[in-house]
Amino acid sequence: MKVIDSVARMATLARILRKEGKTIALVPTMGYLHEGHLTLAKTAKKHTDVVVMSIFVNPAQFGPNEDFEKYPRDPKRDEELARTAGVDVLFYPSVKEMYPGGYSTYVNVEGLSDVLCGASRPGHFRGVATVVAKLFGIVKPDITYFGQKDAQQLIIIRKMAQDLNMGIEIKSIPTVREAGGLAMSSRNSYLSEDQKEEALALFRSLEKAESLIRQGEKDSKKIIAAIKNMIKDKPSIKIDYVSIVDTKTLKDADTISGEVLIAVAALSGETRLIDNIIVNLPAQNLPKDEIKKRKEVKA
Amino acid sequence: MKVIDSVARMATLARILRKEGKTIALVPTMGYLHEGHLTLAKTAKKHTDVVVMSIFVNPAQFGPNEDFEKYPRDPKRDEELARTAGVDVLFYPSVKEMYPGGYSTYVNVEGLSDVLCGASRPGHFRGVATVVAKLFGIVKPDITYFGQKDAQQLIIIRKMAQDLNMGIEIKSIPTVREAGGLAMSSRNSYLSEDQKEEALALFRSLEKAESLIRQGEKDSKKIIAAIKNMIKDKPSIKIDYVSIVDTKTLKDADTISGEVLIAVAALSGETRLIDNIIVNLPAQNLPKDEIKKRKEVKA
Repeated sequence: MKVIDSVARMATLARILRKEGKTIALVPTMGYLHEGHLTLAKTAKKHTDVVVMSIFVNPAQFGPNEDFEKYPRDPKRDEELARTAGVDVLFYPSVKEMYPGGYSTYVNVEGLSDVLCGASRPGHFRGVATVVAKLFGIVKPDITYFGQKDAQQLIIIRKMAQDLNMGIEIKSIPTVREAGGLAMSSRNSYLSEDQKEEALALFRSLEKAESLIRQGEKDSKKIIAAIKNMIKDKPSIKIDYVSIVDTKTLKDADTISGEVLIAVAALSGETRLIDNIIVNLPAQNLPKDEIKKRKEVKA
Repeated sequence: MKVIDSVARMATLARILRKEGKTIALVPTMGYLHEGHLTLAKTAKKHTDVVVMSIFVNPAQFGPNEDFEKYPRDPKRDEELARTAGVDVLFYPSVKEMYPGGYSTYVNVEGLSDVLCGASRPGHFRGVATVVAKLFGIVKPDITYFGQKDAQQLIIIRKMAQDLNMGIEIKSIPTVREAGGLAMSSRNSYLSEDQKEEALALFRSLEKAESLIRQGEKDSKKIIAAIKNMIKDKPSIKIDYVSIVDTKTLKDADTISGEVLIAVAALSGETRLIDNIIVNLPAQNLPKDEIKKRKEVKA
């Protein structure tokens, strides 16, 4: 495994690989790797010749009162883990090289960036879209892999790649969870055992929501209430939002229909936790006139 | 010469050309070609294997009260001219394919985009940066060519390519002028002969500015006053701005020193005209202590 910390050297290597006809996958991360990241790399390895993993704690996506400084970092451990996951190139750029003095270009995916987590974290997704555009520019991958855990990020990156005609395939893998169901996150390292135990309520409430939907509940309000109800009796957890939205537009879905994202964000102490599930209601569960309408569109 | 109007077909062709090891130049235009555009294409042809010229009147860079609808278009004539200039691929995408329903991603080069023409045309350079990023995504050129006439555009695109690590070389060619000195522009077709005659004042005032500087004038205020003085007695012309700015930051340069952009924008009737020159004061014309300082930096 090559470890590269220079933007120019990474770009040159990528150029050489492409000239050799190799396909390149990029797995962008902020490091402090966990099984979620490693699953992304292993999946990438199955489908491309060269897997590049970037590790970059991106200041542009942290708010002034957020945890940029204290975000967990462990380069040595990350390097070992990346190696075992089959990463071919570990790209470790510096903040100074990524955002040199006078840096001023930002990519904004409007509409999708100011809802859900974007409402509580203004500028966050502008920072995400910008750094991913930069990484795409440097590595020029054929495919990139993102986790479903950061569902809004995934939807925004997919929209950016499509709108800006980047010609890069954006793949996702299901959220990797700890034994109890807690979504893996580098930020889980901030949590005490008690906080972790209470944080399980997030996933359990999402499971409950899914089960309500399978039983026929279609009213988003009722489902959201049920989720909030399961979380609110955990003293260490403060809900930021519980939302059910269309997976394309991120607009509130008042009724469960087609593919919806059920997303939860909460604070455990100062630690921000997010989780989500996607529910894709099969057509046979839709009201009859809706099925008819969809068939007509297809025909 | 291939004429392609589909984004997907253009992207596929570009992918094939790159696989064949061909270098690609892109010359982005809004059509209604004149000698300026053709010089860009001819220059590109000398340095790359394949010259792609795009013709796209980009709605995202026109304000609501600007001339998007009436912007001159002549596809047949453009096709003939592009062919004679050695263009290999004429890319002619539709607005519908470039900005499909739900389009929402924009690139903004902050700081550089809200001064000079950006002050009078809010959102203009966001539209320019976005469409150029899209064209770069589709064509994935090695080099692109822009005219010096649109100096602010050139500086912004160069900054965008650098900030977003696009790995694309941005070249410029000097402004091509009509016999009297009027900078070539598709919008000149809006002008009457009398208006054209008066519009010459723009270039003449810039020549005057340059001559003042060569004679030792360093005070930007005095030079700007001289430029305005030469334009203001033309009844058909209304000055928008006359500015002397640093070519990197576009910030006002109170004193002529190093490389500065002297830029003029004016309206002739409803027609917006721009022109500029770049003055690069050789070191020997700088005050002695300044020369000393620069030498020290070099050493």
